This record gives sequence, structure tokens and C-alpha cells, in this order.
Amino acid sequence: MAEHTIKAFDDEIDRLRGLIAEMGGRAEAAIENAMLALQRQDLALAAEVVEGDKRIDAIEAEVEKLVIEVIALRAPMANDLRDVIAALKIVSVIERIGDYAKNIAKRVPLIATNKRLLEPMSLLPSMGQVAAEMVHDVLNAYAARDPDLAQAVVDRDAVVDDFYNSVFRTLVTFMVENPKTISECAQLLFVAKHIERIGDHATNVAEMVYYAATGQTMPERERGGTDAQAEI
Amino acid sequence: MAEHTIKAFDDEIDRLRGLIAEMGGRAEAAIENAMLALQRQDLALAAEVVEGDKRIDAIEAEVEKLVIEVIALRAPMANDLRDVIAALKIVSVIERIGDYAKNIAKRVPLIATNKRLLEPMSLLPSMGQVAAEMVHDVLNAYAARDPDLAQAVVDRDAVVDDFYNSVFRTLVTFMVENPKTISECAQLLFVAKHIERIGDHATNVAEMVYYAATGQTMPERERGGTDAQAEI
Repeated sequence: MAEHTIKAFDDEIDRLRGLIAEMGGRAEAAIENAMLALQRQDLALAAEVVEGDKRIDAIEAEVEKLVIEVIALRAPMANDLRDVIAALKIVSVIERIGDYAKNIAKRVPLIATNKRLLEPMSLLPSMGQVAAEMVHDVLNAYAARDPDLAQAVVDRDAVVDDFYNSVFRTLVTFMVENPKTISECAQLLFVAKHIERIGDHATNVAEMVYYAATGQTMPERERGGTDAQAEI
Repeated sequence: MAEHTIKAFDDEIDRLRGLIAEMGGRAEAAIENAMLALQRQDLALAAEVVEGDKRIDAIEAEVEKLVIEVIALRAPMANDLRDVIAALKIVSVIERIGDYAKNIAKRVPLIATNKRLLEPMSLLPSMGQVAAEMVHDVLNAYAARDPDLAQAVVDRDAVVDDFYNSVFRTLVTFMVENPKTISECAQLLFVAKHIERIGDHATNVAEMVYYAATGQTMPERERGGTDAQAEI
């Protein structure tokens, strides 16, 4: 490629990476705000998270458009092409993470987190925090092409799975003892599941980052998930 | 492009479409078998569905590889490039549908569908049937580039959402009245949610097919889902 073409290609790749960073930052904030809205029963904040998901979706569409342009105009070769296609996959996963945050936010009005729900609620904020950090770190790993950081994200997924198992058991026990809260607890069960899925998706991105950086698939991870619960 | 190049490109597109059809057929069968395994408490069939998901994942990887090859070797122009990129998106959605079927199958051993669960179980088979049909039809719509069939798939999503709302309410009521079944009913809640998500994903593919066939986004659909439940 002529030098100016290479320069244009690099600029487009930078723009692609910038969009992915912005999208990831928004998804991370969405998780944090959805959990805050849930804890504080803040319906306005929850509505903001739901509304904000449109921007995340719009960035995904922008990335797709840019990827098609880059391929059509620059005809990138082997490795570059693979990178550009990987960007498509990564934004589709971030879009799903954003969706889970939105879905948590949508459940807020259905869950009156009054005192009676203190016990089943207790683990959720920390669980959400770990998942949000995984999303944060995996985007740094992507930006820096850092396989060690990607590995650390994957390792942390076991923590989220353990949280999920605890929350599941706590909720079931609580429902048995407090049948009047079953409908709200069912919503909390979905919240816990959404957070667990966010951890899974961050893990998927981390595996892609690791592969892109090292050319190798990540060594089989030792998960907390021999427990069937953690995987479904 | 020289004629033989066009021929090679067409062959590759045919292979791509063949792989997508196979993948979709497997996903549809996975839904049906997972639901059958659940109804009959057939652990062997459930294990088969879980195992079979690997083949679905493998086809996705094959499609990705083929797409990169096609782009690198044939440098397809505007519309063809968009089609090829759309194939990537479609297989990623089918992969998710396969995952949901697998997740239903994984729950089978956790749910002893004995007589006491007859009531909350009653709607699930029909719900699963509608979702499997949506997957079936959307793949036909994709193969035939048929916008009307795609529209019909989207319309049917309201049926799945209505089923979900009924199942949710039935399960919550049942749990209140039968606290001993709460743990199993929580699993059934997730099964219902997985089926509802399968309907959503079939709808997403239908919207892509409609757009590819007509160049227009589908008219805003009237969903049964003013109910918050249907959307989260």
C-alpha cells in the first residue's frame, strides 16, 4: 500500500479502537448504574440506563459500517483483516453486555428493595462490582493487547460464578421462608443471572484478546464451575 | 472479476449458505430435543443436546474462517461484502440460539418433572414449539430472501412473549403455593426465559433478512410486549 493509504488505514483502525473503548466504557458504566439504581430503588437512574443503551447499540452500528468501509476501501491483508473482523465480534459481545445492564435496569421498578429483601440483596452489589471490573479490565487488555491481563479476567470469572451460586441458594431459601417475596426474588434471580452472563461475556472477549495477542488459545481454565449451576 | 473468479465466489457463497442452513437446522433440532428431554426427563437426550452444541460452535468457526477467506481472496464489492458480513452476524445469533437450547438441556437433571410439576410445565412444550418454528421459518426466509416470511416470524414473537408472561405468573403462583418446588420452579423460570430469548433472536435474524431483502428496516412492530415482562 502507498504510504498515505497506510496512514489512512491506521487512522481508521484508531477510530475503530476509539469507538470500541467508548462502547466498553459505556457498558461498564451501565452495569454500575443499573446496580446502583437497584440498590437505591432509583427509577430515574434505571430509566437513564435503559435510554443510554441506545447509544451503545448505535456505536455497534457505527463500528459495523466502519469495518465494511475499511475492508472495501483498504482491502486489508491477512492479519489486519482478522483484526478488523475481531472488532466486529468484540462489539457484538459488548452490545450483549449493554443489553444485560439494560435488562437489570428494566427490572428495578419490579423490585421494591425494602428492608425485607435485605438478605437476598446483600451479595448482588459486590457481584456486580466484580463483573463491571472484568469488563473494564478486558477492554484495557484489548487496548494494550495484554494477554496476562486477559488471563486475569478469565480467572476472575470463577468469582462471579461462585457469587451466582451463593445468590441462587440464598434466594431459593429466602423464597421458601418468605413466599410473599417470590415474585420480587424471581426478578433478583434474573438480575444475578444477568451479572453472571456479563462475566461470561467478558471472559469470551478476554479469550479473543489472548488469542489475538499470542496466536494461541488460552490454556484450559480451572473454573469454579464444576457446579452445574455456574454454567447454565 | 473474470468469469472463473465469479464462479468461485458463487461457490463459496453457496457453501456459506449451506453451512448456515445446517447450523440453523441443528439449532432448531436442539430446541426440540431439549424440550423433549425436559418433558420426558430423558437425561441421555439432554446430554446429547449439550454435546451436539459443539458442532454448532464448530460450524460458526468454519463460517468465520470462510468469510475471512472470501474477503481476502475475492475482495467482494459493496453488496456482496455486506452479504458476507451479514452471514457473520447471523451465525453469531444462531450460535446463541444453540447456547440457549444447550442451557435448557443442562437444566434437565435439575428438574424432576414428576406429577407435582404438571401445572407449571403445561405451557412450556407449546412455547418451545413456537420458538423452534420461528427458528425454522427465519432460516427459510433467509434462504429464500423472503421479506414476508421474515415479517411473519417477527409477528409471532408476540405469541412467545405472551407465553412467557403466562408461564412466569403460573410459576410464581405455583411457588407460593408449593414452597418445596421453588428450586425446580426457578429452573423452569430460566427455561421459559431461554425460550423467550430464542424468540427474540429469531426476530433479530428476521429483521436482518427483511433489511437485506428490501433495503428498508421493518415497520415498527406491534408487540404484545407493552408488558415490561416481555422485554426483559
